[in-house]
Amino acid sequence: MSNRSPAATESAAAMRTRLVTTIAVLRSELAKVRRAGRTIGLVPTMGALHAGHLSLAQSSCVECDFTVATIFVNPAQFGPHDDFQRYPRTLDSDLAALASVGVDLVFAPEVLEVYRPEHATYIEMRGPAEPLEGRFRPGHFRGVATVVLKLFNLIQPDRAYFGQKDYQQSLVIRRMVVDLDLPIEIRVCPIVREPDGLAMSSRNAYLTAHEHAQALVLHRSLRRAAEMVAAGERDAKTVLAEIHELFAEVPEVRLQYFVLTDPETLEEVERVDRKTLAAVAAVVGTTRLIDNLVIGP
Amino acid sequence: MSNRSPAATESAAAMRTRLVTTIAVLRSELAKVRRAGRTIGLVPTMGALHAGHLSLAQSSCVECDFTVATIFVNPAQFGPHDDFQRYPRTLDSDLAALASVGVDLVFAPEVLEVYRPEHATYIEMRGPAEPLEGRFRPGHFRGVATVVLKLFNLIQPDRAYFGQKDYQQSLVIRRMVVDLDLPIEIRVCPIVREPDGLAMSSRNAYLTAHEHAQALVLHRSLRRAAEMVAAGERDAKTVLAEIHELFAEVPEVRLQYFVLTDPETLEEVERVDRKTLAAVAAVVGTTRLIDNLVIGP
Repeated sequence: MSNRSPAATESAAAMRTRLVTTIAVLRSELAKVRRAGRTIGLVPTMGALHAGHLSLAQSSCVECDFTVATIFVNPAQFGPHDDFQRYPRTLDSDLAALASVGVDLVFAPEVLEVYRPEHATYIEMRGPAEPLEGRFRPGHFRGVATVVLKLFNLIQPDRAYFGQKDYQQSLVIRRMVVDLDLPIEIRVCPIVREPDGLAMSSRNAYLTAHEHAQALVLHRSLRRAAEMVAAGERDAKTVLAEIHELFAEVPEVRLQYFVLTDPETLEEVERVDRKTLAAVAAVVGTTRLIDNLVIGP
Repeated sequence: MSNRSPAATESAAAMRTRLVTTIAVLRSELAKVRRAGRTIGLVPTMGALHAGHLSLAQSSCVECDFTVATIFVNPAQFGPHDDFQRYPRTLDSDLAALASVGVDLVFAPEVLEVYRPEHATYIEMRGPAEPLEGRFRPGHFRGVATVVLKLFNLIQPDRAYFGQKDYQQSLVIRRMVVDLDLPIEIRVCPIVREPDGLAMSSRNAYLTAHEHAQALVLHRSLRRAAEMVAAGERDAKTVLAEIHELFAEVPEVRLQYFVLTDPETLEEVERVDRKTLAAVAAVVGTTRLIDNLVIGP
């Protein structure tokens, strides 16, 4: 698990990290791992990896005997006007990065290996899947939950790692695991940010330098809400009014929602008098970004 | 769980059949079985067992090292006007019957052990779940697929056993297993019939003697279709016309559908020139019955 030089990274990729693209090989490789009694950690990704993804992989490598990362841009979770086609694909550098942190196996299948033409089964969720992203991206969590369940069944991990950046997604996955009685521990790892505060996202690659600078208002708004609550403000309306003023100063950033909610139910709160989720979504140029922060007295 | 007779409990104990009602105990018992490297067979039932169920349990006991039968009247698969409340509950005799064929463990949980109040996750299926029962019982297969997936995840069987009587259900389960990459072999066992031809069903207990006699038209219609095809008839319309005449002779039996379909897609066929599913649903008195037969030249 020691840090490796870029040169060593290449040889690690060549020697230690196995790239698998078919379900048949995946199953047979993991059967060996399981027979040896080794614990398996899963890091599901869509590739275009950044330091946030790598922190998940690092946690898995520390906590599990064998770590599988998956790279699959899942068409089922994109809407018809979403960025499925232009989503960044960077397999070579992804493999090198995963090898450098000690990932044992990378599963990177083609779409047809995952969804056969006659695929007919989907996970539908009420409750935590309905508000926020559920409202702005209809069908998104249906696609996420379906592919994650498929990966859980294919890989049968002991633990699976998700980032808090996609806070609602982690709630949806945790709810699914409880509701469907899956014997899997879900680990949610902290948001990794750029030095300027922007939450790491594969979609940050879409931003021009000007848009990147404007996008900082997302994190600024979350910090402003946290500061107001730290200073004693408890009224959600008052906090939200100030946040909306903040966004009004950056009119090119189109706010979709900024909410203060219960961290478990995602129901909006009137008073911030306990642990509260501040969650924000906005469109900068043609790029949709989300961010969140758990705040509270 | 208070209405269990000492006799049934004793005979189950004598046969070494373990009754389990909680998920925690179920998981710990099955972990031992799995650690011992024994294969697990699952027979999911709603209780009120008949010879059809027992044939599934017998197959599992022959083919697997350890057989789990579940008894759970699943509210999610009943519509608001269905017979959830009056569905027969016969736990004592069910346990004795399962013990007599060698079932190792019976999981019979309360509803709240299976569905927590905050349950939000369901399986939705297109394709094979849409026609026939899907049309007459909206939400039925959603409930079936959801509870079967939960049982699969709880028990993690090597094989699971279903009856051909619920032909479409077995297609739905097979589709789900493929689509969600479950490492489970689905076994579909033949319909068991009364000596007079009526397909065994827990709901037959609802029938009066008169209704039972009338209900024989279901099996008679399937045999008639098979005979016509065996005699060279290939035109589906001609077969269906004769079947409708047959039902017209028993006006108290309200036919819901009689179809000739592709056995895999359930799409209706115009010509019976290969293996074809004949499937029928009808209401007799207040009891809804289904039956089917695979026919063809």
